[in-house]
Amino acid sequence: MKQSVSLITLGVSDYERAKAFYEALGWTVALNIEETAFFQANGVVLVLWGRDKLAADSGIEDDGASWSGIALAHNVASREEVDRIIEQARANGAAITREPSETFYGGYAGVFRDLDGHVWEIAHNPGFGLGPDGSVILSARSQ
Amino acid sequence: MKQSVSLITLGVSDYERAKAFYEALGWTVALNIEETAFFQANGVVLVLWGRDKLAADSGIEDDGASWSGIALAHNVASREEVDRIIEQARANGAAITREPSETFYGGYAGVFRDLDGHVWEIAHNPGFGLGPDGSVILSARSQ
Repeated sequence: MKQSVSLITLGVSDYERAKAFYEALGWTVALNIEETAFFQANGVVLVLWGRDKLAADSGIEDDGASWSGIALAHNVASREEVDRIIEQARANGAAITREPSETFYGGYAGVFRDLDGHVWEIAHNPGFGLGPDGSVILSARSQ
Repeated sequence: MKQSVSLITLGVSDYERAKAFYEALGWTVALNIEETAFFQANGVVLVLWGRDKLAADSGIEDDGASWSGIALAHNVASREEVDRIIEQARANGAAITREPSETFYGGYAGVFRDLDGHVWEIAHNPGFGLGPDGSVILSARSQ
């Protein structure tokens, strides 16, 4: 198995509401097929799809949980950008579960949950190399 | 907010067990810091970290759920590769929630859950462009 993640699908309870949320954060849908929104990110594709369909398609019994232990991180080049994105998420109805603050790893980050509870850490980590497309390149760390 | 996902952190209940699982699937840790494993994937970085630490760090009340509605997809170039990886996951203790079969989108896929319940679809989708690093490039679809 190659080390790759091709798509990240977020199950959503209200498709239009979820799409509007990500669009309000500045994301643009690349492909829209029958209530499935595909956003092109840095190599990986972010997908919004009905949670019920995702559960059925995956052969999973949905336990109606709000958190299964996955967090997505969106790394940025400055502390100011962390503050700005957290405010943008808050203004669009996201719950801020951690206000932007210093992190134990010497960075600065805030955390929000989107309207379906999916967790996003918005982080500035000076210890990581950050590509122009937002990709963290671990090998850049030792440069 | 730029369209990017920098890291995907999977909360795990037993760090050594989780790391051994991904290593058995062929993944190699790029960076190991205090029971945190960083795997370099295609731009995005996959991280294994204690679920309790991830919850605390994210300001989240852990509801102990097994599924919150996120699925990761690992796309491959052939049906045979789908079969091979699903068997590899099964041999390492993963639950196969969908045996490899035809999909509604004209592809072929199987789904497993890792030892902490995180959902992976292993998919061959002839309708998507697939980069050499496993990235799905949506624009390639219209070529």
